[in-house]
Amino acid sequence: MSYLSLDHLDDDTLARVLALARKVQQEPISDVLKGKVLGLVFMNPSLRTLASMQAGMAQLGGSSFVLTPGASTWDLETELGVVMDGTKAEHAREAVPVLEQYCDALGLRCFAKGVDLTDDAREPVLSAFSEAGNKPLINLESALDHPCQALADHKTLDDLGIPKDGKIVLTWAWHPKALPLAVPAAVAAMAVRRGMELVVHRPEGFGMPAPVAARIDAQAARGGGSWSETDSPDALEGAHVIYAKSWGSTTAYGDAAGDALLRQGLRSWCVDEDWFTPAQPDAPFLHCLPVRRNVVVADSILDGPRSRVVLQAGNRLHAQKALLWHLLASRGPHDVQ
Amino acid sequence: MSYLSLDHLDDDTLARVLALARKVQQEPISDVLKGKVLGLVFMNPSLRTLASMQAGMAQLGGSSFVLTPGASTWDLETELGVVMDGTKAEHAREAVPVLEQYCDALGLRCFAKGVDLTDDAREPVLSAFSEAGNKPLINLESALDHPCQALADHKTLDDLGIPKDGKIVLTWAWHPKALPLAVPAAVAAMAVRRGMELVVHRPEGFGMPAPVAARIDAQAARGGGSWSETDSPDALEGAHVIYAKSWGSTTAYGDAAGDALLRQGLRSWCVDEDWFTPAQPDAPFLHCLPVRRNVVVADSILDGPRSRVVLQAGNRLHAQKALLWHLLASRGPHDVQ
Amino acid sequence: MSYLSLDHLDDDTLARVLALARKVQQEPISDVLKGKVLGLVFMNPSLRTLASMQAGMAQLGGSSFVLTPGASTWDLETELGVVMDGTKAEHAREAVPVLEQYCDALGLRCFAKGVDLTDDAREPVLSAFSEAGNKPLINLESALDHPCQALADHKTLDDLGIPKDGKIVLTWAWHPKALPLAVPAAVAAMAVRRGMELVVHRPEGFGMPAPVAARIDAQAARGGGSWSETDSPDALEGAHVIYAKSWGSTTAYGDAAGDALLRQGLRSWCVDEDWFTPAQPDAPFLHCLPVRRNVVVADSILDGPRSRVVLQAGNRLHAQKALLWHLLASRGPHDVQ
Repeated sequence: MSYLSLDHLDDDTLARVLALARKVQQEPISDVLKGKVLGLVFMNPSLRTLASMQAGMAQLGGSSFVLTPGASTWDLETELGVVMDGTKAEHAREAVPVLEQYCDALGLRCFAKGVDLTDDAREPVLSAFSEAGNKPLINLESALDHPCQALADHKTLDDLGIPKDGKIVLTWAWHPKALPLAVPAAVAAMAVRRGMELVVHRPEGFGMPAPVAARIDAQAARGGGSWSETDSPDALEGAHVIYAKSWGSTTAYGDAAGDALLRQGLRSWCVDEDWFTPAQPDAPFLHCLPVRRNVVVADSILDGPRSRVVLQAGNRLHAQKALLWHLLASRGPHDVQ
Repeated sequence: MSYLSLDHLDDDTLARVLALARKVQQEPISDVLKGKVLGLVFMNPSLRTLASMQAGMAQLGGSSFVLTPGASTWDLETELGVVMDGTKAEHAREAVPVLEQYCDALGLRCFAKGVDLTDDAREPVLSAFSEAGNKPLINLESALDHPCQALADHKTLDDLGIPKDGKIVLTWAWHPKALPLAVPAAVAAMAVRRGMELVVHRPEGFGMPAPVAARIDAQAARGGGSWSETDSPDALEGAHVIYAKSWGSTTAYGDAAGDALLRQGLRSWCVDEDWFTPAQPDAPFLHCLPVRRNVVVADSILDGPRSRVVLQAGNRLHAQKALLWHLLASRGPHDVQ
Repeated sequence: MSYLSLDHLDDDTLARVLALARKVQQEPISDVLKGKVLGLVFMNPSLRTLASMQAGMAQLGGSSFVLTPGASTWDLETELGVVMDGTKAEHAREAVPVLEQYCDALGLRCFAKGVDLTDDAREPVLSAFSEAGNKPLINLESALDHPCQALADHKTLDDLGIPKDGKIVLTWAWHPKALPLAVPAAVAAMAVRRGMELVVHRPEGFGMPAPVAARIDAQAARGGGSWSETDSPDALEGAHVIYAKSWGSTTAYGDAAGDALLRQGLRSWCVDEDWFTPAQPDAPFLHCLPVRRNVVVADSILDGPRSRVVLQAGNRLHAQKALLWHLLASRGPHDVQ
């Protein structure tokens, strides 16, 4: 079994993995993955994912290795039928089954190219790895998904006591770069599946594109949540939690000049205490990190009591350890429901 | 004891290591290397070697660390008597004995410079490491040798039931770059030592140079094999196995323009099903990987039943674990002959 | 408890850690750190520190992970109040507490910027990490300190039987670059605290700057040592040990042209056998490494009996393992005083 998207986990499995995450948080050290090896392929930078995956495997008694195509190893081709006379020296069709012989599961980080939304939406790299292999594959953030983040965020919402049918505002923020849609898409889908009322608060030109909207619709139908989009500050009214994240323009996707034009004059989209005035009292602030201070959110929020971003990132470790246990352990956690 | 070349293993030791490789393939997890540390120095990129060495140490209960001169650490000088006022901040004469105090064995990858064949043939970097140290040193591919590949390939030939005196065709293939001779030299020497009839199938200008030819001669004499070179497709007649690999021109070694000229018009040297017509029925296709699809070999071969390149790469793990066990374990595999 | 400077260890703790270092040298393999994880953040290259920290954790039964800001992960901001719209994507205020949730201690390497001495002297990056975190932080070389080196060097002086009140000459040497003051400052402070007579032998323009001099004064007062500076070769008279290291001009700190001018004509500051003529017979040669041969010191010294630089680097492992045991183990080394 692989873990390419949170959407692929049925409700029972999701509940079991979340319970297991609470268990490993209480008892972090064990040997359930003794002798197991996790291969980690990072095509893009990482801080939390790399560290928590390596620490998590070690704390469960296993180990891991890291490959960085383009740095420690050559770039990998993932398209089929290509005449490989360019810069890419190896194809995923060989690399994946080869690496699978050296480990018990593979993790892959492969950000969006950000040129063509249709192309990114077909998840060309993640799909190529998935099709080339037979062992568990873990999505460590792909073009349009970040299921480890979504799983951890689900636990964070539970930990914070946010009502299952509470209101979550996923707000866009200004950022100097057009960032991928992976986190907003994954978090939105998770939130509505959890049963929440989601408002995506973003400027014109940054709305959820069709494939992402369809995914959120499907998960809302599955979980009983609902969602809408707006650029109005009314969005924040009554929010139980505000989750900030920047992303690139979706109407000018892959068009740097168009994106820059749309982004102009939006530097006021930086979350500060005023944003919380219409929200529920004590509504927490979440962000997947890394976050640019005083660009995406004010110092006063990150340094104040609303910010739970550190707790949130801590849940990456617990959630992923539960996932690794679920995917890789030969003996199950019998004492967990 | 070090492992710089397969040629250095006597027949008994080779047989024992191959037997041990079959054993660890059956029982991959153990603690024979508990407390042992392998230091890995990569001066060039790696996928299989890095991953299989790290996974192999972990599966045997040990651990490893990775240094990448020029990236995570400074470039290393290896020549003696140099006034080190250039870019290289440390000499192997210090680095090697220092690192040996932190680990039980060192692995080193140091590709050919590809400028002067005589210089590459003296293996300046590998030799410098070997002379500077006292602990086991494992050659992870040097200028003209790749003994971990050769050991694994020996096991692959055994696994596939290729007769000891069978015919192996080592065929050149077109490639956009002038690649090193390490794999063809190591595989050729292994094959004739195994007793095989080797034909090196290559265009004019790509024949085995004198130091490599002398080595193959010596191993053929030792093992009872034989070898020849030709650019004729008759080479493929009756082959039990076709092993493809590209390498740079040996007559225009280090001469980029000359190499490019020789390479011109040779793109038809791309292995496809036609190449197997004169061979034995079901003759397998081997390649050390990474391989460029539709440049070195057609998709149809790699995706078809002839290709055993994944099995072949899997044997890297088993062969290297056997080698590490042989070199590092204080208690031997008593149940293995 | 963190380990930011050797100065912060009281005498009893220092004695216990040195005793523990001798113990782990005798019995290198144990499981006292089973389940413990060390997070290593390298903002600059490393050979000894990376390898010895990873090997040390493994030999004590624990594990480690490595992050390299600017390579495997994004650059980190450390200044407070910054509007982060430049190249730095994450602030230490988030990164440090997040990473601390994945490990039991953090190690940080953050070299001096070398622009403004006052700025470097406030240790902006190390301080930012220290202030942002709650778990043990280990200084793996900061702007003006290298306490792991100093601890190991203390053990080396003990191992070599250098009298507690012996004479140590810390000599500058020529080098093509203006190197940081971290090692000379740390070694000088350690030596005078150990009770030694220290002479800093350096050309004009390379004297210890005020903050370093004040630190050496304080440690001399604490430990009973004494120190002076000179450019005269008389410095070497009667030395029990000569410790070489290059560093940038302190009067032209951050001024590349001024530094180069001061450095001109100083290539004779390359340690050779003549330097030892006025010293004690058999006075050893030390250097923290990496060292440029025939630039900082002659081949004949490094390849001769005076050089103990390999032993010295070996003590990095033992000293750091003792430190890790001291900082992280739940059960103490009861059999050690």
